[in-house]
Amino acid sequence: MRICIVGCGAVGSLFAANLAQLDDVEVWAYDLARAHVDAINERGLRLSGAGDVVGRLRATSEARELPPCDFGIVATKAMHTGSALAATAHAFGGGAVCTVQNGVGNEEAIAEHVERVIRGTTFPAGKIVEPGHVQWDVKGDTTIGPFEPQPAPAREIERLADACTRAGMPTKALPDARGAQWRKVIFNASTNPVGALTGLTHGRVCELELLRRLVSGLVDEGKAVATAQGIVLDADPEELIDYAARPDVAYDHKASMLQDVEARRQTEVDYLNGGIVRYGRDNDVPTPLNAAIWALVKGVERSWQEQ
Amino acid sequence: MRICIVGCGAVGSLFAANLAQLDDVEVWAYDLARAHVDAINERGLRLSGAGDVVGRLRATSEARELPPCDFGIVATKAMHTGSALAATAHAFGGGAVCTVQNGVGNEEAIAEHVERVIRGTTFPAGKIVEPGHVQWDVKGDTTIGPFEPQPAPAREIERLADACTRAGMPTKALPDARGAQWRKVIFNASTNPVGALTGLTHGRVCELELLRRLVSGLVDEGKAVATAQGIVLDADPEELIDYAARPDVAYDHKASMLQDVEARRQTEVDYLNGGIVRYGRDNDVPTPLNAAIWALVKGVERSWQEQ
Repeated sequence: MRICIVGCGAVGSLFAANLAQLDDVEVWAYDLARAHVDAINERGLRLSGAGDVVGRLRATSEARELPPCDFGIVATKAMHTGSALAATAHAFGGGAVCTVQNGVGNEEAIAEHVERVIRGTTFPAGKIVEPGHVQWDVKGDTTIGPFEPQPAPAREIERLADACTRAGMPTKALPDARGAQWRKVIFNASTNPVGALTGLTHGRVCELELLRRLVSGLVDEGKAVATAQGIVLDADPEELIDYAARPDVAYDHKASMLQDVEARRQTEVDYLNGGIVRYGRDNDVPTPLNAAIWALVKGVERSWQEQ
Repeated sequence: MRICIVGCGAVGSLFAANLAQLDDVEVWAYDLARAHVDAINERGLRLSGAGDVVGRLRATSEARELPPCDFGIVATKAMHTGSALAATAHAFGGGAVCTVQNGVGNEEAIAEHVERVIRGTTFPAGKIVEPGHVQWDVKGDTTIGPFEPQPAPAREIERLADACTRAGMPTKALPDARGAQWRKVIFNASTNPVGALTGLTHGRVCELELLRRLVSGLVDEGKAVATAQGIVLDADPEELIDYAARPDVAYDHKASMLQDVEARRQTEVDYLNGGIVRYGRDNDVPTPLNAAIWALVKGVERSWQEQ
């Protein structure tokens, strides 16, 4: 079986290096960061931290070099899905493409380029330390399932879940993966931008009563939008928020969006709060707090542009 | 007539220097910034910009030096009202004290220390350039009236308005000054923190459609809270917002709260959005957007504290 990781940043690298441990899987990685690609090809892709792994795989920044693949696993930032799939779609003419990205709307963007799409959500996290080397911060589960309008066959979804699980990335194949996806979207949309706008770590956001109440207000809107779509969350995002605030979990963690803001990189807010607002509008559910947060983060991004 | 300016920052200095031009008014200034006090006593208080004035007055950081005064004009930042009045109240045993501060709740804080209170709102603005020298950026009107629970007599309110007007600070005495006060509070609460959270000037906030819509959402909540109290705004805050966004008015203006955030100074958000939330709660008017903005700015302030 041949799998191509599309976007081999921190999360993509966790899948790539672990899947490369399997004898029956050939792993390719497509990424535009040439130094990272070169390091992977020369020395392998190294993970350290929650697990120590070196994966041997083929990496490239040239989409035309990709051979036909059975699966794609898309792990770009959400705003790069369209361009990454436009470049790589030829490799998935006979395969299925799974997203493990943040936010909502990624499946729809993938489905504009390929036939069979797998919905997915992943909790493991890490960061690139240097080209070819990723720090694996958090282990966690992945949930995948059909993207309803253009689903991959159930058998294929199970085959991908089985490979990931055997590789050390525990993955469940469900008939409806939206419950896990929306739990994570709601968690991210309620905590990430609050950290980004205030400069506070996850634990400190949760300590300030006024802010914790705002987080719950954002969660409530997200839950209402999920419910209006007939989605049953697999667990309450509030539990995840409180769990992550523990000193032994992620009290000191700077949300990825805060890292983006500090580095003046475009954020994924359009696919988090912006996504909740869009799905809310389509389902007649008001989302004024998510709209406010979306607007503020877009304002922060605008402030980096010269006039 | 003897008038003491309590808090002789930018706005206090505009009143102090102009009132000191009048032969029938003796002006004192109470301020904790010793360098500013010393400069005023040595060289007078100089205004430049919208008007060029040098005022001769007595300044002090020692409240016990203040003689009995007919009027106080309080111009401290809103969070310093209580401590400033606790120190200076003895000077106003026979007088009346007027606020020209930002936000809501200042009259109540003053009334804890003195008998007769005058509600007030002022639009002129400036900034301290160096000790003893204030740049007068914007001319504008002042509106004063009784603080209903502990009003100064109408005759006294008119006497103060007349002195300010003769001194070049046009001031109207109204039986109900709340319409002007709430228009300014709503304007400030809807634009200041949005600039502070995004880093954008007033004009750029208004250009980004998502943000301009958030500003209107904040305005609508403020209007509802005013209406619930029986307050009739003297004009629509939306007009002031659009007017200020013009390139020839305040397009490039950084809101005072953005200046505070950039300098890591405590902001007045508790008296702007926080005030709207409190009055909303007292009047059963929901204010979720103002609560969100209040929480985010408190979070920003918290991020400056070491853990």
